[in-house]
Amino acid sequence: MARLGINQYGKAETHLVRVVRDAPAHEVRDLLVSVALSGALEAVHLDGDNSAVLATDTQKNTVYAFAREHGVGTPEAFAALLARHFVGGAITRARVEVREVAWTRLSDHAFTQASSEQRVAVVVAEADAQWFVSGLSGLVVLKTTDSEFHGFPRDRYTTLAETDDRVLATEVAARWRHDGSADFGAARAALLECFAAHHSLSLQQTLYAMGSAVLDACPGVAEIRLSMPNKHHFVVDLSPFGLENPNEVFHADDRPYGLIEGAVVRDGAPEAGPVWDPYPLV
Amino acid sequence: MARLGINQYGKAETHLVRVVRDAPAHEVRDLLVSVALSGALEAVHLDGDNSAVLATDTQKNTVYAFAREHGVGTPEAFAALLARHFVGGAITRARVEVREVAWTRLSDHAFTQASSEQRVAVVVAEADAQWFVSGLSGLVVLKTTDSEFHGFPRDRYTTLAETDDRVLATEVAARWRHDGSADFGAARAALLECFAAHHSLSLQQTLYAMGSAVLDACPGVAEIRLSMPNKHHFVVDLSPFGLENPNEVFHADDRPYGLIEGAVVRDGAPEAGPVWDPYPLV
Amino acid sequence: MARLGINQYGKAETHLVRVVRDAPAHEVRDLLVSVALSGALEAVHLDGDNSAVLATDTQKNTVYAFAREHGVGTPEAFAALLARHFVGGAITRARVEVREVAWTRLSDHAFTQASSEQRVAVVVAEADAQWFVSGLSGLVVLKTTDSEFHGFPRDRYTTLAETDDRVLATEVAARWRHDGSADFGAARAALLECFAAHHSLSLQQTLYAMGSAVLDACPGVAEIRLSMPNKHHFVVDLSPFGLENPNEVFHADDRPYGLIEGAVVRDGAPEAGPVWDPYPLV
Amino acid sequence: MARLGINQYGKAETHLVRVVRDAPAHEVRDLLVSVALSGALEAVHLDGDNSAVLATDTQKNTVYAFAREHGVGTPEAFAALLARHFVGGAITRARVEVREVAWTRLSDHAFTQASSEQRVAVVVAEADAQWFVSGLSGLVVLKTTDSEFHGFPRDRYTTLAETDDRVLATEVAARWRHDGSADFGAARAALLECFAAHHSLSLQQTLYAMGSAVLDACPGVAEIRLSMPNKHHFVVDLSPFGLENPNEVFHADDRPYGLIEGAVVRDGAPEAGPVWDPYPLV
Repeated sequence: MARLGINQYGKAETHLVRVVRDAPAHEVRDLLVSVALSGALEAVHLDGDNSAVLATDTQKNTVYAFAREHGVGTPEAFAALLARHFVGGAITRARVEVREVAWTRLSDHAFTQASSEQRVAVVVAEADAQWFVSGLSGLVVLKTTDSEFHGFPRDRYTTLAETDDRVLATEVAARWRHDGSADFGAARAALLECFAAHHSLSLQQTLYAMGSAVLDACPGVAEIRLSMPNKHHFVVDLSPFGLENPNEVFHADDRPYGLIEGAVVRDGAPEAGPVWDPYPLV
Repeated sequence: MARLGINQYGKAETHLVRVVRDAPAHEVRDLLVSVALSGALEAVHLDGDNSAVLATDTQKNTVYAFAREHGVGTPEAFAALLARHFVGGAITRARVEVREVAWTRLSDHAFTQASSEQRVAVVVAEADAQWFVSGLSGLVVLKTTDSEFHGFPRDRYTTLAETDDRVLATEVAARWRHDGSADFGAARAALLECFAAHHSLSLQQTLYAMGSAVLDACPGVAEIRLSMPNKHHFVVDLSPFGLENPNEVFHADDRPYGLIEGAVVRDGAPEAGPVWDPYPLV
Repeated sequence: MARLGINQYGKAETHLVRVVRDAPAHEVRDLLVSVALSGALEAVHLDGDNSAVLATDTQKNTVYAFAREHGVGTPEAFAALLARHFVGGAITRARVEVREVAWTRLSDHAFTQASSEQRVAVVVAEADAQWFVSGLSGLVVLKTTDSEFHGFPRDRYTTLAETDDRVLATEVAARWRHDGSADFGAARAALLECFAAHHSLSLQQTLYAMGSAVLDACPGVAEIRLSMPNKHHFVVDLSPFGLENPNEVFHADDRPYGLIEGAVVRDGAPEAGPVWDPYPLV
Repeated sequence: MARLGINQYGKAETHLVRVVRDAPAHEVRDLLVSVALSGALEAVHLDGDNSAVLATDTQKNTVYAFAREHGVGTPEAFAALLARHFVGGAITRARVEVREVAWTRLSDHAFTQASSEQRVAVVVAEADAQWFVSGLSGLVVLKTTDSEFHGFPRDRYTTLAETDDRVLATEVAARWRHDGSADFGAARAALLECFAAHHSLSLQQTLYAMGSAVLDACPGVAEIRLSMPNKHHFVVDLSPFGLENPNEVFHADDRPYGLIEGAVVRDGAPEAGPVWDPYPLV
């Protein structure tokens, strides 16, 4: 015999664009909204009884209608509004994720999308509680010096040379859980400033420093998780052509890549609750 | 003050192709191998001390060398071999994921890659334990009838019509944790046969039935998790052109999509241990 | 002063799925249809006068309506039907491209998409003429031996070793122009059989042989163009680990790749007309 | 009997990163370089005789070595340097395409990749001639008003309503052929300024105006070609929920999309030569 395990469902990646026309200078908000609901959903899984299954089509409609009725506000506020709306009856938990891409103003009503970086907000709501995660994805950074890597163990399969000066490049994904008060701009600035100023002995050390910088900048942040692929830049061996290569010419490789993931937790941080628990396929 | 939270690191997506030339009919194995190591790694994060950090470059070398020394075998066996190798010293846990794409034989030494479906194996090893997850990604299926959706709640934002005959399409990602004995082919066949035979009242019901079918077919499986996006096929309204559309002409939409995720757990299944715990960014 | 140069417009990538329910065993057709129209379109470009601009939305509707009214038939037939429909008035030329992905039957009404290979048909129609191109994209093939590469010139920048046995892998894109009579299955089979049987001294030679094989197999084909990226499989140097690597363990690299493109033309072939002239951005 | 038709070969997408360390403020250049060579290449296609086939591996090495020996300079200059190098002997024409992504300075030696927009340069060289094309890809723009679309013909399949105020969004790809003197910044600015200021009656009209603006801004430009997909933003019908939607809430759709392509040619422009002739698969 078997039973239903962990589960959730919802409408993913509703692409909402909201124009605000209140002033001569229009505003554009560009959001991907994903909803995931969970609760007492045995009946639909076992019997195909949909009486508790708010259709994902309805969820999509609600996203658009709320954007009109309530406006969008911060991504966190919009996610919270939606998440709280969906909780009730059989649905005991709603997770809403908003991914926003910024448009840069060209004129009162023309814009360009200068970056594919995404600002991310996740709100998990239950009847009596809600949790906030904010973050970003697609923040690509590189430094041309101030990065070393040596002192690592050497075994039979180790060929990598030690270096005291390498190019370090990564695409930062970061998520910080907080009490709802964290200022996104301050957190993002802390990540960038730390990356630029940090003298790196390893990407792990840089990751930890960047996470700590966010905790320092944002008192409301309890924990930050970072995922930083090491986008390898290999010094090209030009010696066959009679040329030196003093760290100037690099091959930027696609795969494989190192993947460095880690969290920094504030002492005395409250429990995380369900915020770090997406549906875990693996 | 802060502390290091959950963390792991490793080389991701080493693309290994292994040719076996023992017989006139060669064999080709095509694997993406990703390694993630965790353990006592405070020193590197806090101080940049790399003495416990087996370089990701070394991990990549190990993948290639092991493919030569030991051959590849099943994806599960290769993942287990690597994972056990990496555990030791500061590294107390290794997760190795193998994704294999099949090549179809054209002749003794020519092949075509007929499908982008991936067979997946994940092994998590600790000094005294190991856990197995097997699965697949990218199994795209569709049925032209035997799918209904009605009886869902209607609120102010509901416009979806009820239907007793719709096209159902999804791309199955499945992972099943087991004791190492599960036969991949039997599990895959159970997924396909159930999808084809099941009369669906909702995608959740179909998901649960497919998971149950794998439990029935593979006694060694303790739990299966499935992720099934509802790839919407909308009946095109042809009435403006004076045409009926008796469920024949569809627009296949890209986004948004319903995302249905759920698990089926065998009664009395052992604890999952760390297998469902990847680094959880959100 | 300036004038309007080459131009065209249309609806791209209408994703049509057509179910045929005439028999207990349903059929599924899965097409991406792209339309490009050209003609006397100065007025819209210079003055914004849309009186000759059949809306791309109308083109999309026409694709769906024709699928219902006329059925789909072969991709070539469906493309021709649409292309001829759009020619008239200011529109003096229509190019319609159909890309079809196959579904494999699981049962009377369940299917799996076993491959992402695309069958392609392009029809260009003018009032008194039409031209046919058929082809495929995404045909991935590999051979483990019977491929050499040597005798190439060596200059100051050449480091590549000569080899008389390498892995050869590519993803074939092919287009053949014909009189409408070419059998798709025969052409595809000729490509695969030649790839498997050919002893390759260079990918260019293999390309030419494959093209010639299609001309031999299909009398109606006047010319075939092939694009074959050399998906490099590098022998991993295992000597630092005390291991030989007799062409068994490979790193499959992503970028850069060799890109080999070439055409084979039948002696006495008719003029190509406009078939090879898409809008040429570069 | 058959003969070799149009053909070319070369190394595509060599990913070169060049760091300039001459001053305390380093510079980073990030280029994808693709080479395509053509000429008297019958021997390799027909006989597998590689004596004229400069290996694509050698081409890659040359890209890296030239970046060290000569520096990168403008994308056009680097492309020209490489293209001229490759012409000689059997190779009578070389096409080199450079795609550059910009890095934005954070500090003397830290950078962020703020945009995925690509600056493009193509140089085609023959023994006694060379041609220049410059351009960009991935310039995403949107305007919230000043866009109309009406007066288009209505046939049996037309359902689209006329509108005098719609959201217009596109991702501009542009290429302009010139004598080598065209200022990239001036051309890009002209595209953006025209998009922002133009009152659009159709995307074709906007395209033509943008192209004309580049001709006005850059005397050395003979012709500009633009490709502008109409990234549809559909007004969501909120009336079922008792809500008006005065052009404020939009669904941004993925597919299908209108695709508008056109050229603006300066009166008296010189012949284009081979610049618009890539290997034309269709």
